[in-house]
Amino acid sequence: MNVKLVKQSGSTLDIVNAARISFGKQIESMNDKDWKLIQYLWTHKHTSPFRHIHFTFHIRAPIFILRQWMKHQVGCSWNEISGRYVEFEHSFYHPQKWRSKPDKSVKQGSGQELDDETQSDCSTIYQNTIDSLFDTYKHLLTIGLCKEQARMILPTSLMSECYWTCSFQALIHFLKQRTDPHAQKEIAEYAWTIVNLLNEDEDMKRLMKICGFNS
Amino acid sequence: MNVKLVKQSGSTLDIVNAARISFGKQIESMNDKDWKLIQYLWTHKHTSPFRHIHFTFHIRAPIFILRQWMKHQVGCSWNEISGRYVEFEHSFYHPQKWRSKPDKSVKQGSGQELDDETQSDCSTIYQNTIDSLFDTYKHLLTIGLCKEQARMILPTSLMSECYWTCSFQALIHFLKQRTDPHAQKEIAEYAWTIVNLLNEDEDMKRLMKICGFNS
Amino acid sequence: MNVKLVKQSGSTLDIVNAARISFGKQIESMNDKDWKLIQYLWTHKHTSPFRHIHFTFHIRAPIFILRQWMKHQVGCSWNEISGRYVEFEHSFYHPQKWRSKPDKSVKQGSGQELDDETQSDCSTIYQNTIDSLFDTYKHLLTIGLCKEQARMILPTSLMSECYWTCSFQALIHFLKQRTDPHAQKEIAEYAWTIVNLLNEDEDMKRLMKICGFNS
Amino acid sequence: MNVKLVKQSGSTLDIVNAARISFGKQIESMNDKDWKLIQYLWTHKHTSPFRHIHFTFHIRAPIFILRQWMKHQVGCSWNEISGRYVEFEHSFYHPQKWRSKPDKSVKQGSGQELDDETQSDCSTIYQNTIDSLFDTYKHLLTIGLCKEQARMILPTSLMSECYWTCSFQALIHFLKQRTDPHAQKEIAEYAWTIVNLLNEDEDMKRLMKICGFNS
Repeated sequence: MNVKLVKQSGSTLDIVNAARISFGKQIESMNDKDWKLIQYLWTHKHTSPFRHIHFTFHIRAPIFILRQWMKHQVGCSWNEISGRYVEFEHSFYHPQKWRSKPDKSVKQGSGQELDDETQSDCSTIYQNTIDSLFDTYKHLLTIGLCKEQARMILPTSLMSECYWTCSFQALIHFLKQRTDPHAQKEIAEYAWTIVNLLNEDEDMKRLMKICGFNS
Repeated sequence: MNVKLVKQSGSTLDIVNAARISFGKQIESMNDKDWKLIQYLWTHKHTSPFRHIHFTFHIRAPIFILRQWMKHQVGCSWNEISGRYVEFEHSFYHPQKWRSKPDKSVKQGSGQELDDETQSDCSTIYQNTIDSLFDTYKHLLTIGLCKEQARMILPTSLMSECYWTCSFQALIHFLKQRTDPHAQKEIAEYAWTIVNLLNEDEDMKRLMKICGFNS
Repeated sequence: MNVKLVKQSGSTLDIVNAARISFGKQIESMNDKDWKLIQYLWTHKHTSPFRHIHFTFHIRAPIFILRQWMKHQVGCSWNEISGRYVEFEHSFYHPQKWRSKPDKSVKQGSGQELDDETQSDCSTIYQNTIDSLFDTYKHLLTIGLCKEQARMILPTSLMSECYWTCSFQALIHFLKQRTDPHAQKEIAEYAWTIVNLLNEDEDMKRLMKICGFNS
Repeated sequence: MNVKLVKQSGSTLDIVNAARISFGKQIESMNDKDWKLIQYLWTHKHTSPFRHIHFTFHIRAPIFILRQWMKHQVGCSWNEISGRYVEFEHSFYHPQKWRSKPDKSVKQGSGQELDDETQSDCSTIYQNTIDSLFDTYKHLLTIGLCKEQARMILPTSLMSECYWTCSFQALIHFLKQRTDPHAQKEIAEYAWTIVNLLNEDEDMKRLMKICGFNS
C-alpha cells in the first residue's frame, strides 16, 4: 500500500461545532439537522468550518507525481525523504499501462492505451533504462561522488516518501483536482486511493458523499 | 474558564516521524535520542516537522484581544460568533487592574498599576459606560434596527467566541509573541493560560520546555 | 475617499506570461488570443497565474468592517493603526441608512430601510452615544489611564486605517464575497469602491469584466 | 543568465509607510530616520511591513534545485513549464565541480572537490548518461508514447522554467536558508545570483545590507 492514513484529527462534529459558533451554539452528537447544515455549508462554499479537521498521510510516490501533489500547499504541511542524506534504493514507479499521445486537438495529457506490442516495447525500454541508471548512480557513489550530486541523474520515476498533513478543505481541493478527467492517470490513482481510505469510516463516507465523492 | 482545549491531534512522536522521513526512517515510541532530535530541530529552526500536530481551542475573549490574536493566520483556522446572526448578551471583559501611561521614552503599551482611587474611578466609569451602551444596543433593537447595525456601537471589550485550530508551530509563534514583555497584559494572560493547558500533558510539557516555556 | 490605490504591480501581460510558461513561451504585448487565454484560465479555475499581480491599498474603515475584511488572509498582507501607540481622534463611521431586521425566515443580515422617523431616532441615539463615548475615552486618558486600556470602551464603528497588499486572486475572492447580496451593505460599498477604482484602468476593466464585474 | 528579475513592486518607502500606519503617519520620501526604522523593524522581527513589496523572477533551473526552491510557499506564487504539454529540449544542468562525500561525522551534503581524474570521469559518465537518456526519451515519443509518461525517465538535472512571485519577506527567508553553508552549493549559486540582482538597485542594496547580505 502506497498511501497510509497515519492519523485523523476530528470528525464531522468539529465541522458542525466550528460552524455553530457563529450562532453561539455547540452540540455533542450529530443528528439530521447537523448533516443538513454540513450540506448547506458545502453547497454555499462556506468552507472555513472544514479547516478544523486534519489528516496525516504517509505517502510513497514517484517524484513526477509528488511534484504535482506538492503544488498543493495552502493548509498543507510536507516533509520528504532527502537524497542529500539517504542513498536511494532501487525503487521506481511502474505505470500499469502505457498510453498514446492525445488527439491533435488536445494539447495536454494522453490518449488511449498503446497496442500490446508497443506496451511491451515501452516496458522493456523503461526497465532497461531504469536499471542502467541505477547502476550508474551506484557507480558514481563508488568512485567517491557525493549523494547530493549523484542523484542528479536519477529519473523522476524514482520513488520518494512523504509525510503530508492537510486540512479537510485542502484535502478535498486536492482530490477534486486530481480525480478530474484532465488529471494525469498516475496521480488520479493516488487520489482515488485516498478517497477509498476515507470511505472506510462511516462518518467520513457520508461527508465525502456531500462533497461529491460517491466512491 | 475562557480557553478550552477541544482536541489535540498528534504527539511528539509525529514530530519525530515527520523529521525522520528525511532519512527514510520511522519510530513507534519516543526515546532519549528522539528527544535530542526534537531539541536539535528546534534549535536549528527546522520547523516543518512541528506543523504535523494540530490543536483546536474554544476561546471566549473580547474583540480588542481577538483582533490581535487573529492577526495570526499562517497555519491557523478561525470561526467566530457573528453579530449579524446573534443578539449579543451582556458580557464584557473586565481587566483585573487599570494601568498608567508608559514612561515618556516608551511609545507603546502601559506602565504601572494606577493608585487605588483612580482604579476605583476607572472601574466605575467603565462599568457605567458598558451598562449604558448595552441598554442603548437593546433599545435600538427594540425600535426595529437590525442587529448588524446596532452592534456598531458596542465596544471592543464585548466578549466574543471563537473556534481556533492551529499547528504546533503556529501556536508557539503566537505564544512567543504574546507572552513577550511588550505584549499587552490582557492577551498575555490568555497566552499563559494556553501554556498551562498544554503543560497538563507530560509529553507536551517536555516539548514546551524545549521551546522555551518553563511555565 | 476612504480607499486609495497605493500601487499596482503588473498587468494582464504578467498573467499571460505566468500561464504561457507552462508551454515554455513568453509574449511582449497582449492580443486577442491572449485575452481568450485569460478567459479560458478564469472559466476553468486555473487561478495560479492570477497570483503574480499585486495591489496595495490604503484603507480607512470602521473596525466592524475591517473585522470582516481581515478574515481574508491567504495572499494578503495587513498593517493597521495601533490604539496602543496612537490616541484616537473623533472619527466614526456613519451608515447612510438604518435598516430593519430581516424577514423572520432569514437568520442573518437586514431588511428594508426603516421609516423616516426611526431613521432620525437611530441617528440621534447613535450620534449621542458616539460623542459621549469619545468624551469618556478622553476623560479616562486625562485621569491617567493608558491608551491600550482606555480604547476598550470605543465602539466597533471607530474608524481605523490599514495598508493592505493582496494578489489579484485574493482581491477577486474578497470582491466576490463582499459584493454578494448576502454581504453586509456597509462592506459591500467598500468592495464596489475598489471595483470602480480598478475599472479606471482600461486593462484592468477588461480583466474585471472577465471575472464577472460589469461595474 | 538563468534568473531574470521580471518586475519589482514597491520600494523601501512602502515598508516604511506600511510600518508608520501603526502611528497613523505616512511619508513621501526616505530619510535617515526612516532607515533607522527599517533597521529597528528588521532587528526586532516586526516582519509584516516587509510583505508589501513583491518581486517576480523568471527562473531556469534543474528539477532537483526547483524541488528545494518550491518548498518555499508562504508568500510565494509559482508557475512552471509542464512536461504534459511540452516536449522537452536537450537542456540539462552541469555542475561546475563534482564533490566528494562529506566527512563521516556529517550526515548530509558534500565535502571537497574530487581530484582531477575523478572530475573527468564523473563528467564523462554524466554526459553520456544524459545524452543516452534524452535519446531514449525521443525514441519513446517516436514509437507513440505520450509525453506525460515518456518524461518519467528524464533525470532531475533536466532544466525547467518558472515564474516566481514572492514578497520581500519570503524572498529573504529563501535567501537566508539557501545561502547558508549547509545548503547545497547548486542552489546557493542561484540564491547569490538573486542577491546580486537586487544589489544592482541602490535602495535595495541598502535594504539587503540591513538584512545581513553584504554581497
